[in-house]
Amino acid sequence: MAHIQLPENLPGITGPMVAYPATARALNGIAEAVLVKDTKNLSKAARETIANYVSYLNGCVFCSESHAAVADLLWDRPGLSRELWKDVDAAPVSDVLKALLAIAAKVQKDARTVATADVDKAKALGASDEEIHDTVLIAAAFCMFNRYVDGLGTPQPPRQDPAYLEVGVRLATKGYVKSIGGG
Amino acid sequence: MAHIQLPENLPGITGPMVAYPATARALNGIAEAVLVKDTKNLSKAARETIANYVSYLNGCVFCSESHAAVADLLWDRPGLSRELWKDVDAAPVSDVLKALLAIAAKVQKDARTVATADVDKAKALGASDEEIHDTVLIAAAFCMFNRYVDGLGTPQPPRQDPAYLEVGVRLATKGYVKSIGGG
Repeated sequence: MAHIQLPENLPGITGPMVAYPATARALNGIAEAVLVKDTKNLSKAARETIANYVSYLNGCVFCSESHAAVADLLWDRPGLSRELWKDVDAAPVSDVLKALLAIAAKVQKDARTVATADVDKAKALGASDEEIHDTVLIAAAFCMFNRYVDGLGTPQPPRQDPAYLEVGVRLATKGYVKSIGGG
Repeated sequence: MAHIQLPENLPGITGPMVAYPATARALNGIAEAVLVKDTKNLSKAARETIANYVSYLNGCVFCSESHAAVADLLWDRPGLSRELWKDVDAAPVSDVLKALLAIAAKVQKDARTVATADVDKAKALGASDEEIHDTVLIAAAFCMFNRYVDGLGTPQPPRQDPAYLEVGVRLATKGYVKSIGGG
């Protein structure tokens, strides 16, 4: 049971999103601004990969599973997110995305440790300033979303539950502002 | 120097806010939604206290100093935030705010550790469901803002620099949407 009264049968972030529409609008605004955007090295799929990887590192079941479902759909590659969680280096994604994921992992743990060398590596592989910026903000934003979901003790289906595929389809096709809560 | 090109002479979050107005609007939307609101046990001052305390725990100089300045102004009590960072239990704030700060500290470290007992304690002291919700979201949001500021390596004046008082006055009087960036 969640720590506060929430609408029944709404897993993870969807409960507080429906119960608190003013903050839901603001939260969806962030998700939309950082995730629903394509740049040269950060497609929507790549952005969802950063989101689910950071959520996995934070141990947030709902966010990691939901955004893994979105990413796998957008990459058209079932199972990719799980492969990447196990071993980023061996995952079939670009070197520049791996360099950006390394920055994201530092932001997740302690953002003060992001070093010039980390950023130079991503830039040498083609990442733009905007892509570095968006990587840091996606990682930071999921440190918020994950804490919101877990700090409220929201109910979450177990890992690999089919419910996550439904969430994934909805988010991959409708985006964030129109999908959940008070958009 | 910041890890990406940013406008000169804009400390902390103000640089990326000006450089990236689309995400700035979304970020200001979150700040406004969680901080500029008064409820029985969570005045604007109390909300700023949660914000600066979490920022202090994350070691983010810019955010902790800026929001300490806002909080001290709103409480009309210079030095309160620093007292509280040193010893929450001894600080001259209400017991219910102390119970909410304890929840915020757990959210900052690992949100999965927030326990029913923590929430029950705050509720027994008068906190509403909405105030528990807002506490978790303020703490979570500052885990984002802090990482955004530090992960980009933004320039930050040293602790207790007079520049923070200016930021505090601006935020305390104008709020967030109109203060910074692309509002």
